[in-house]
Amino acid sequence: MADYENFELGDLVLQRGATLRRATLAYKTYGNLNEDKSNVIVYPTRFGGRHTDNEWLISEGMALDPGRYFVIVPNMLGNGLSSSPSNTPAPYDRARFPHVTVQDNVAAQHRLVTERFGIEKVALVVGYSMGAQQTFQWGASYPEMVERILPFCGAARTSPHNFVFLEGVKAALMADAAFKGGWYDEPPATGLRAFARVYAGWALSQTFYRERVYLEQGYSSLEDYLIASWEGNYVGKDANNLLAMLWTWQNADIGLTRRFDGDFEVALGAIEAKAIVMPGETDLYFTPEDSEYEVRRMPNAEFRPIPSIWGHFAGSGRNLADVRYIDDALRELLAS
Amino acid sequence: MADYENFELGDLVLQRGATLRRATLAYKTYGNLNEDKSNVIVYPTRFGGRHTDNEWLISEGMALDPGRYFVIVPNMLGNGLSSSPSNTPAPYDRARFPHVTVQDNVAAQHRLVTERFGIEKVALVVGYSMGAQQTFQWGASYPEMVERILPFCGAARTSPHNFVFLEGVKAALMADAAFKGGWYDEPPATGLRAFARVYAGWALSQTFYRERVYLEQGYSSLEDYLIASWEGNYVGKDANNLLAMLWTWQNADIGLTRRFDGDFEVALGAIEAKAIVMPGETDLYFTPEDSEYEVRRMPNAEFRPIPSIWGHFAGSGRNLADVRYIDDALRELLAS
Repeated sequence: MADYENFELGDLVLQRGATLRRATLAYKTYGNLNEDKSNVIVYPTRFGGRHTDNEWLISEGMALDPGRYFVIVPNMLGNGLSSSPSNTPAPYDRARFPHVTVQDNVAAQHRLVTERFGIEKVALVVGYSMGAQQTFQWGASYPEMVERILPFCGAARTSPHNFVFLEGVKAALMADAAFKGGWYDEPPATGLRAFARVYAGWALSQTFYRERVYLEQGYSSLEDYLIASWEGNYVGKDANNLLAMLWTWQNADIGLTRRFDGDFEVALGAIEAKAIVMPGETDLYFTPEDSEYEVRRMPNAEFRPIPSIWGHFAGSGRNLADVRYIDDALRELLAS
Repeated sequence: MADYENFELGDLVLQRGATLRRATLAYKTYGNLNEDKSNVIVYPTRFGGRHTDNEWLISEGMALDPGRYFVIVPNMLGNGLSSSPSNTPAPYDRARFPHVTVQDNVAAQHRLVTERFGIEKVALVVGYSMGAQQTFQWGASYPEMVERILPFCGAARTSPHNFVFLEGVKAALMADAAFKGGWYDEPPATGLRAFARVYAGWALSQTFYRERVYLEQGYSSLEDYLIASWEGNYVGKDANNLLAMLWTWQNADIGLTRRFDGDFEVALGAIEAKAIVMPGETDLYFTPEDSEYEVRRMPNAEFRPIPSIWGHFAGSGRNLADVRYIDDALRELLAS
């Protein structure tokens, strides 16, 4: 039995031109919507993640307390629950799944929030990594609606270096002939494992590896960490789904929202929400430098890096000190 | 006509146990050995490089002036000129080429220097990247012989994170079934291109890409840079040769020299040569932090990072300011 619900999007015309017919947005809510609908938090998912991967930040006693807030977690298009290569019928199935932008995701989420729940104000949008990209997009697309944002370990625009890192993981996956241009019947396991092994170097800092933190996490060696944690995480995922989300990531840029006509700086300036922008201090691809650039151009934002050796994974929920640091910032922002 | 010479190593017994029969060391010399043999510089090659790739640092008017010094450039084992998977006869050919350590390389180079040229003192050992690893090894293996060392953008031991980065490029290459476990007849072109694409994110800094420095280097777009520079560089290389050198790299550790019995810190302490250790300030895998750790344990060393946004490529000879910075340090060290 599914632990989530589906919102029917109908024939979804995408920013890049395709129409995704009978598209669906899978979502889960936590807590109850209060009477004046003033307790809404939207918390989009990360690359490769599902609503359940967000739950470490939602619980009683934490800032995102379901006893107080109504937390909506929409699953990103391409993640296997919302419309994705793996669940879309022909002819837009598998390798033919269309290009979906961050704007498309957030527009669909906006429909969920307004059409299904009749919500007019969102107290907070928060997200990690690609979830942070969607968070920035919410702020830029619906400034009159979004009161606060807290994007962590993400950016409003994917940097050229981040793009190149993703070219690498993509090339590793697609080097496996079993991928068959996306028309595989059996998963391209070798390519998925290569994808994971390339990714492993990027997601955590040099210091994380130097200090062998993985040994404290229940892995018996570096190779055990690479196999049990990294290959184990990716070998069961659908390759086309990963590549669909990866395209969304590579092409993320709030400036490409229609009304900003390609102007990234104008888009940043349009984010009226009170914001705390939290990059991981040692993140190798969503760098603090990029966040700082963004914050300087946002009217109501604070730059607050997470002091952590966990690299991008400072926002993954794996390290208690980082979880507390993010939770404290959320509490502060929600109280303001 | 070859522009280099071969030194016959005979039956080379390697540190990890194999014997490489009729092994050869390809080398080139620049300048003339003076009468008291006091003007010797040894300058080993980098990963995937040959003696010609070192020549940007050797010329009249520069520190490594062939009018003054006798510069010996030995080609690393596995690089396609010295004994390598691609040129070794069966049964140690191709996928069966044995594991070669940095110690093996430097021991062979020591024989070249002493047996062929009768040299007893080396004024300087210098090297970039894996060439720096060999430079540290020279200092640790032959402290009574080596007067100065200048390793740049390298380390005396490959860090765990650096190891993981290399796991990624390796996995990308080997994901191509055309690699056939090393027994290919046609090159695994897709795997080599994936290898290059993964590597591209690592070799240069986030800032290099953010500032689109590749456009100033004659590339018309990011994709043109990835194809023309990166894929272009690797698609013609022999996959087994790359993997042989990569194994050497992953297992580099001067502490594994027999007399140090695994003790890295003792090995660092044994480097008596006057040293300037020059990491690239923004190098993502041979990090300044690792160099600093090493310098603190070397009796006669200075830590001098190269201020550059070129990442690991600060030592590649491509950026004039970096070349000058390294050349100045070489001049200073040689004068001392």
